[in-house]
Amino acid sequence: MSFVSIREVGPRDGLQNEDPVPADAKVRLLDALSATGVRRIEAVSFVHPKAIPQMADADEVWARSRHDPDVRYSALVPNTRGAQRALAAGFREIEVVVSASDTHNRKNLNRSTDESLDDIAQLVPLIHAAGGTVEVIVATSFGCPYEGDVPPERVGSIVERVRADGADRIAFGDTTGMGTPRRVRDLLSVVTPDLLHFHNTRGTGLANILTALNLGVTEFDASVGGLGGCPYAPGASGNVATEEVVHMLHDMGYETGIDLDALIAAAALAQEIVGRELPSGVLKAGLRTR
Amino acid sequence: MSFVSIREVGPRDGLQNEDPVPADAKVRLLDALSATGVRRIEAVSFVHPKAIPQMADADEVWARSRHDPDVRYSALVPNTRGAQRALAAGFREIEVVVSASDTHNRKNLNRSTDESLDDIAQLVPLIHAAGGTVEVIVATSFGCPYEGDVPPERVGSIVERVRADGADRIAFGDTTGMGTPRRVRDLLSVVTPDLLHFHNTRGTGLANILTALNLGVTEFDASVGGLGGCPYAPGASGNVATEEVVHMLHDMGYETGIDLDALIAAAALAQEIVGRELPSGVLKAGLRTR
Repeated sequence: MSFVSIREVGPRDGLQNEDPVPADAKVRLLDALSATGVRRIEAVSFVHPKAIPQMADADEVWARSRHDPDVRYSALVPNTRGAQRALAAGFREIEVVVSASDTHNRKNLNRSTDESLDDIAQLVPLIHAAGGTVEVIVATSFGCPYEGDVPPERVGSIVERVRADGADRIAFGDTTGMGTPRRVRDLLSVVTPDLLHFHNTRGTGLANILTALNLGVTEFDASVGGLGGCPYAPGASGNVATEEVVHMLHDMGYETGIDLDALIAAAALAQEIVGRELPSGVLKAGLRTR
Repeated sequence: MSFVSIREVGPRDGLQNEDPVPADAKVRLLDALSATGVRRIEAVSFVHPKAIPQMADADEVWARSRHDPDVRYSALVPNTRGAQRALAAGFREIEVVVSASDTHNRKNLNRSTDESLDDIAQLVPLIHAAGGTVEVIVATSFGCPYEGDVPPERVGSIVERVRADGADRIAFGDTTGMGTPRRVRDLLSVVTPDLLHFHNTRGTGLANILTALNLGVTEFDASVGGLGGCPYAPGASGNVATEEVVHMLHDMGYETGIDLDALIAAAALAQEIVGRELPSGVLKAGLRTR
């Protein structure tokens, strides 16, 4: 049996791409997820409330939620101010984002990729000095909605730069669901991340994870219920649904530590909270055998 | 470049699991699909109109639709009467179904698996005598919603029996979306079909196809737009969506003969015809690059 490490990103990446929900609902969802046996949760982001109103109450949500000693919680931050807030709130696993595509980086962060890399170089020692670790998420690693294909070498050079600047961990984000098994193979033949973050926008989510597993990657992001969606294609799926990933992995003999029934219950809660039908097939159809 | 053969089953398997639509709409969909470059279409089934009202106008639909000389059209039949109608209508590729699970076979066909195998043994010479070929689709090959897991050896013994009785081709159907990469490997290590028919009920559709491709299978069913749905889980996805399959295959360098833009237009037509949002991600989000 091999262990595959799932990081649940529904409370942050999922809810950030839904209409805002009350802090109470976020706390309920976080607590439900902490009780599933999942070992890692991306809990909140510390961003400017005008930029992302969905995360305006991050401090309150985090303070009121249960912190399970067996779960590693992380927070996403866009800048020094966010990192200071995250550290003050007690987070020690900090994520930052940079896009491999310059156009996407400018649209997303209002600066060039190189400028964001300079920002990250400044952030790393600040976070390290406070005892934290930095994961750099390279967004649009499998393609950009503005620029199209992103050369694997471009992702590789970003990884080289951020590693040289002290990043502790690297994740590749398939930000708009342009990943396919072929693109996974192409990129991973050039550079291997610690963790992969796939979207299921064009149905390839689990096929991509399968491909990456066969290439040795054992850490994946997923969002309960498929919470989130895709800002670039209204109505389309966003993050791979955690219970679909775990359902496939368990059937293949991998361990995740997750109780699938508890996870499906958390997905039903997520669906109730956002008040729309979530895309997860396992939520709709249940386990393959009952 | 390798060729992967897609059989489009939307007009039959898809529409059979939707609310009935007028013959006009079926003809429009069939004609749109014939123009996509797809090489095979499961066009209609010849079943009792009381059992399946969706296919009551099969003769009319077939007579009025365009028959492209580059497309192989097939029809599904449940019995001798259906086979006679299909042959009289001009079909030479005939499909019959038997479930690997006895319980599913009884619920679906009102007889045991063994009784259905006896029926097939009688049908084969009748169809051969008229110049037709017989494909036996082994339903619930990857699991049964009533019995749970189906032993691969059970599927293997059915294949042995129908081959001995003269079946020309064998397909395995993942009737309720219980297939996973592990189940695909397990079954294909015992017996290999000519064609695989996957559902995407629990998100594994493309991962299963990827697994089967790597094991040498090159023929797959798919339904335009993901038309169909799952009678066992209301709201859940049914057949894998043709454009999701083709989108992944083309990106991997496989040829299918299909024009993906024409296929997406056909999926939009299918969605308009049934008047509900179809599950296909590629229909919602478009191609990975534009």
